[in-house]
Amino acid sequence: MDRNRNLTMLCDFYELTMANGYFLSGKKDTISYFDVFFRTIPDQGGFAIAAGLQEVVEYLQNLHFTEEDVAYLRSKNLFDEGFLNYLRDFRFTGDVWAIPEGTPIFPGEPILTVRAPSIEAQFIETYVLLALNHQSLIATKANRIVRSAEGRVVLEFGSRRAQGASGAINGARACYIGGVHGTACTISDVLYGVPAGGTMAHSWVQMFDSQYEAFKRYCEIYPHNATLLVDTYNTLKSGIPDAIRAFNEVLRPQGITSCGIRIDSGDMAYLTRKAREMLDEAGWPGCKISVSNSMDEYIIKDILAQGAQIDLFGVGERMITAKSDPVFGGVYKVCAVEDENGVIIPKIKVSENVGKITNPHYKKVWRFFGRDTGKAIADYISVYDETVDDSGDFEIFDPEATWKRKNVYNFEAKELQVPIFRHGELVYDLPDLQAIRAYCAQQVDTLWDEVKRFDNPHNYYVDLSQKLWDIKQEMLRDAGKQL
Amino acid sequence: MDRNRNLTMLCDFYELTMANGYFLSGKKDTISYFDVFFRTIPDQGGFAIAAGLQEVVEYLQNLHFTEEDVAYLRSKNLFDEGFLNYLRDFRFTGDVWAIPEGTPIFPGEPILTVRAPSIEAQFIETYVLLALNHQSLIATKANRIVRSAEGRVVLEFGSRRAQGASGAINGARACYIGGVHGTACTISDVLYGVPAGGTMAHSWVQMFDSQYEAFKRYCEIYPHNATLLVDTYNTLKSGIPDAIRAFNEVLRPQGITSCGIRIDSGDMAYLTRKAREMLDEAGWPGCKISVSNSMDEYIIKDILAQGAQIDLFGVGERMITAKSDPVFGGVYKVCAVEDENGVIIPKIKVSENVGKITNPHYKKVWRFFGRDTGKAIADYISVYDETVDDSGDFEIFDPEATWKRKNVYNFEAKELQVPIFRHGELVYDLPDLQAIRAYCAQQVDTLWDEVKRFDNPHNYYVDLSQKLWDIKQEMLRDAGKQL
Repeated sequence: MDRNRNLTMLCDFYELTMANGYFLSGKKDTISYFDVFFRTIPDQGGFAIAAGLQEVVEYLQNLHFTEEDVAYLRSKNLFDEGFLNYLRDFRFTGDVWAIPEGTPIFPGEPILTVRAPSIEAQFIETYVLLALNHQSLIATKANRIVRSAEGRVVLEFGSRRAQGASGAINGARACYIGGVHGTACTISDVLYGVPAGGTMAHSWVQMFDSQYEAFKRYCEIYPHNATLLVDTYNTLKSGIPDAIRAFNEVLRPQGITSCGIRIDSGDMAYLTRKAREMLDEAGWPGCKISVSNSMDEYIIKDILAQGAQIDLFGVGERMITAKSDPVFGGVYKVCAVEDENGVIIPKIKVSENVGKITNPHYKKVWRFFGRDTGKAIADYISVYDETVDDSGDFEIFDPEATWKRKNVYNFEAKELQVPIFRHGELVYDLPDLQAIRAYCAQQVDTLWDEVKRFDNPHNYYVDLSQKLWDIKQEMLRDAGKQL
Repeated sequence: MDRNRNLTMLCDFYELTMANGYFLSGKKDTISYFDVFFRTIPDQGGFAIAAGLQEVVEYLQNLHFTEEDVAYLRSKNLFDEGFLNYLRDFRFTGDVWAIPEGTPIFPGEPILTVRAPSIEAQFIETYVLLALNHQSLIATKANRIVRSAEGRVVLEFGSRRAQGASGAINGARACYIGGVHGTACTISDVLYGVPAGGTMAHSWVQMFDSQYEAFKRYCEIYPHNATLLVDTYNTLKSGIPDAIRAFNEVLRPQGITSCGIRIDSGDMAYLTRKAREMLDEAGWPGCKISVSNSMDEYIIKDILAQGAQIDLFGVGERMITAKSDPVFGGVYKVCAVEDENGVIIPKIKVSENVGKITNPHYKKVWRFFGRDTGKAIADYISVYDETVDDSGDFEIFDPEATWKRKNVYNFEAKELQVPIFRHGELVYDLPDLQAIRAYCAQQVDTLWDEVKRFDNPHNYYVDLSQKLWDIKQEMLRDAGKQL
């Protein structure tokens, strides 16, 4: 189904005009290196969560042009016939390295690196970015929301407000990586194993002659899964009393003590405190209280601070669209090419916006963990042929304020990127979604609290090796001279 | 391809638990009426644009459960075996009416109405909302951006930042309805006929030994489509001079006078004025200037006010995600059921949030156009069995401030919803996308400028008929008494 869609034609048209141009200019087989990286963290947070790699893998494995695609391109009267013929056997034959899904990531570091013939490396830009940008955005937002709930259950409820079908489907997957406990989006369970669940809408209540009858009938059908929506008419005056009556009549005789109510409107701090009292007084301390009206990390923190009595948050539009900051700005930039002798020539993009200057060269990215604390100390980007000796002290420095130097000691350096494709073959064992989610939680735990703050978090170090910094400076000087 | 995907399982799980419940409670065949409507206009604008209907049609036509779907549901141990068996032949057999794509729409009015057996009408909720919410959101945003460009070309460039593949594909379609002239998203052209185009990225420039060589080669390959990206190194010092040199050497000898440059960074007001001067002085007045860095309606208005010399805007993330307000809050609410004699019983949802109270009953929605001006005067929602006599004067009133009354005269009343499905059969001739786009532009022209203002627009009237208002008030009184 969704996982086997051929989305080859989901590319910016310029990928095709450039591909034709490389084909005609004898450049199609020049080996080039592209990095995906991002520049700013959504919501001014302290870190993002990598996600979307599996979607990239599925895309690359399905990459091919159909005869209809070729016919469409021919109709544009732009493309060389030899090029169109070449597209018939076009496949991805390159190498890919990437930071695994669920890993905390930081601005400026290569999340994913491609080494391939230029024509292939260039062509895949649009979809690789789309997949990583979308899922990393949503996983990052979900992680914020889950952390704000301080251990309470968070469910993803946003399909109806998602930006398209894939927004809902892959969005729910990304939310799960970020830490939610399940989704309302059934197909995300079918395709990816995100646990799906749900009970009733207001229309169920309205479809019966009375609210009580609607509740009673629901409890009869789903005695072990009875979460009743209590705000169709009036939460405190009729909703909770009718729910208690239905629990008493249907569940109690069966000895069932766990059930739930859901409130979808009104003042959640006040209503849930009152609801908790009413349920406890009626002998239903095992009844869970769910809320689901325009929640996000700020509202959750706020109402919890006011003593709201909530067991479960249903979070919709503000998570599935990352409403407060709905774009993840990952970019895909050439960082090197190989000459005819296989020598790697670094490339840089200078820009009038300083923030748009790239880190040149084929690189490695490392994370330094304290051996005593297990905490992440800094990330470190080196040229591909460097290694990090983590047996003793190691000096790192701020690449923008080079006089700020710091000695790291008693640390372990771990390479973040792992091989995904080798010569077009998948060499990576895609972890299952449960494992990615668990890995994410464990990796977020390696960050200091200061990095995890929602507002004004500590700026985590992402430093360059001296060698990489020197190469970059030299290239910037040369670029300046050429102008 | 995308248009034939079976997205039946893209539903909130509660649609399934409720469906099973209706099945077991003898309610599955109760005819019910659901309305889609929305409550607030994104970006505090004066109107929204309806879009997504074709996606709803494709969804309903493809609606069916596979054996794998049924097996998945069985594994949940929640569903009745008779229900699971029933799902094998589940199809949509109901009626649908909707406001055509491209129509300006306002809060509170039924955009789409479903009449179907409860189990079907309920089940389709999630996807119907998802499709209408997503495409209406993006069409509305695109229309704002296109209007801000005051006749200049606007292209959709956002695929890489879209929220998933469908966000890119259907988003580009919605942008086109809203008025953009084309897209970079190739597959949206293949599937829906959104004209796709594009030229080069920075990587093209970096792949050659010099910028000049990259430009020259591009002009040789695409002499009639040569838009050169001039900001890879330095726009004014080398980008535009190299472009002019390539135009002079390759295009001029061929007598070609139209070409283009694109600027993707820096101060657009300043750079484009300078660029225009340089190009004109060099004898390239036919060279179009494109810009493409984080554009939206506010930035476009601002830089145009500062005298920016721009022919074409490439708009990316801020349009394809509707970044400034990325959720369209359409809801799907039951408004009536039929009793065993076919009598229509209105239903209402009361709520502690006053804004969440629904308009009951099976309804019609009308738009009044001035016969002299052609302008839209007001929308008017009536009970289904009412007609509007537009031969003389007609009194309308504000449903919240009923003393505010207004006489409408010399007007034509037009019903906005048209039949889409009748007994599960498509009875609507889906217009092609060009026609929808043209219709949208023409319908937006029927709105007064006061409604089209970006900030603090005039609040367009959406009034209720006296009969509908009376029924609603009576139902609210009854609901109050029951508590």
